[in-house]
Amino acid sequence: MSELRKDPFTNRWVIISQDRSARPSDFGHEDFVQEHSYCPFCEGHEDRTPNEITAVRSADSKPNTPGWKVRVIPNKFPVLESSSELKRYGSGMYDAMTGTGAHEVVVEHPGHIANMADFEVAQVHEVFKVYKTRMLDLYKDQRFRFVLIFKNYGISAGASLSHAHSQVIALPVVPWNIKLELETARAHYQRKERCIYCDVIKQESLVRDRIVSENDDFIAFTPFASRFPFEVAVFPKKHSYRYTDCSDESLALLASMVKDVLTRLKVALNNPAYNIVLQTSPNIVSRPGNTDYWSSIEYDYHWHLLFMPRLTKVAGFEWGTGFYINPTSPEEAASFLREYDKYMA
Amino acid sequence: MSELRKDPFTNRWVIISQDRSARPSDFGHEDFVQEHSYCPFCEGHEDRTPNEITAVRSADSKPNTPGWKVRVIPNKFPVLESSSELKRYGSGMYDAMTGTGAHEVVVEHPGHIANMADFEVAQVHEVFKVYKTRMLDLYKDQRFRFVLIFKNYGISAGASLSHAHSQVIALPVVPWNIKLELETARAHYQRKERCIYCDVIKQESLVRDRIVSENDDFIAFTPFASRFPFEVAVFPKKHSYRYTDCSDESLALLASMVKDVLTRLKVALNNPAYNIVLQTSPNIVSRPGNTDYWSSIEYDYHWHLLFMPRLTKVAGFEWGTGFYINPTSPEEAASFLREYDKYMA
Repeated sequence: MSELRKDPFTNRWVIISQDRSARPSDFGHEDFVQEHSYCPFCEGHEDRTPNEITAVRSADSKPNTPGWKVRVIPNKFPVLESSSELKRYGSGMYDAMTGTGAHEVVVEHPGHIANMADFEVAQVHEVFKVYKTRMLDLYKDQRFRFVLIFKNYGISAGASLSHAHSQVIALPVVPWNIKLELETARAHYQRKERCIYCDVIKQESLVRDRIVSENDDFIAFTPFASRFPFEVAVFPKKHSYRYTDCSDESLALLASMVKDVLTRLKVALNNPAYNIVLQTSPNIVSRPGNTDYWSSIEYDYHWHLLFMPRLTKVAGFEWGTGFYINPTSPEEAASFLREYDKYMA
Repeated sequence: MSELRKDPFTNRWVIISQDRSARPSDFGHEDFVQEHSYCPFCEGHEDRTPNEITAVRSADSKPNTPGWKVRVIPNKFPVLESSSELKRYGSGMYDAMTGTGAHEVVVEHPGHIANMADFEVAQVHEVFKVYKTRMLDLYKDQRFRFVLIFKNYGISAGASLSHAHSQVIALPVVPWNIKLELETARAHYQRKERCIYCDVIKQESLVRDRIVSENDDFIAFTPFASRFPFEVAVFPKKHSYRYTDCSDESLALLASMVKDVLTRLKVALNNPAYNIVLQTSPNIVSRPGNTDYWSSIEYDYHWHLLFMPRLTKVAGFEWGTGFYINPTSPEEAASFLREYDKYMA
């Protein structure tokens, strides 16, 4: 029997269709290999990319040469550009604005490694520290209302190059999903004077049937109304509305949790394609006319990472309704992922 | 230079990234062939499906035998079932309900034809009349708040069988995208005493740079803030909030418009995979406790069909933000589709 579940963070309903329940082995995986010699992201190939924005590199090395651990470069095909002046305009009854923003690529490893699951934890830590640095830097620009950090691994997750990398996009508007989360969280806080995410974390910690993994600072679980099979959310246990407030020490524990979750997904699901997105506070720009100002966000919101293995196809039903059908129950998914404790360091 | 555009129907922003602009020939297409002899949907293979719910068939033929034009059967793997009693319940702070609903398949042609673009207009007309019949029948059941009719053509659009078919899902809740459209339309009506869709149709008819095709009753255009390349919307020109009010005569003109749009997409984009969804009024269930009751919907809403060719991959960025990047401007797409006037009957 299937069940409808409401996502508490967005009030969106999801169908958990257990009759269609598939074992993880029923899902396809994909091998995604590319020649090192052609790869523009490998150490030694720095001349094949635009000049770097920043890099974590040895003191004696020069920009755009070998000797780096993580390298940030402008996207060669940016969807938004920071050079343009931000203009808002109308077109009849329609609203539009210039494509002002930023679009960067974080090359996550000097070697030709595709999956972050295969990194050392220390290397994952470097990457997550770079995310923080980039976000802090981009938020100095008051035109940018939101910085999205995300990662596509594998062709069916939208990656076009196999060398491990993530993307940073700075937007002049707060994206719609984030707005919806913020509004839902604010409504909860106003009713209860409690963060809705803290409430969910507390309930998950008690019930435990959706917990995937846990350490001193972070908890990983499959969301109650997961849209996708084996979707995993990672939250800081202590209330915190923005990623940039996370200390470098705590980011080491996040790196260890990311490695843990990615290893479970890789082993349990036979190297699936996946997306990761970082959901955090918008840039708080308080000025006249800004309708996206969230005065109570410090209390309302709670940043998190979402891991979405790409195992099912999204089709007309989902596009037409925003209504997702998930063939694997979150409890089954969590239980299956917990079986891989033995692979953990 | 790219541009951000706001969809007037949902207030969602979309990036129209013209720098990435691709010619239609850059998009992949897919051949999607299946042996007739294995196909459960072909005339003569009626014993391979569950018993039919209804069919358009010759007077002298019997149910579940040959002699039909369109056949409606229960989905063999339903995501929702009408047999179960609708129960709403809580689980700690979470909300859930039983998977009560209906899930049917409309087999659109007795012959082994995959693409509705290759049907005679008269056959398309039969299919759209069946949609109306099924919707009217399902809306008699007050448990069902929304009936979604959609179609997946091609593997990357989510179809698993090639024989032309569509799906009907009756849901116990109003889906989230539809709710959002209804709320946006209502806000517009309350401010202006005009339907927002009528306003958009009027503007598109004047400006004409996004028009794809037009007949006496229907207009097809690429939406201003299209999420996908070559997305096409078809609206009745006269205000009408629900599909079921469309006369059979007018459905003949709709069928002709559907054939027109599908033919353009097939020829211009080299037989792409696509989804079609029908967006129409929910079932108006007025009773105590129903928070989904839309008293002014008759004025607010305007039903329509959405055609979404599946040419690009949706990745982490879109899932994380609800923010779409569209590499083809709607004006270019419409202009390109208009070039195929010569293929039209």
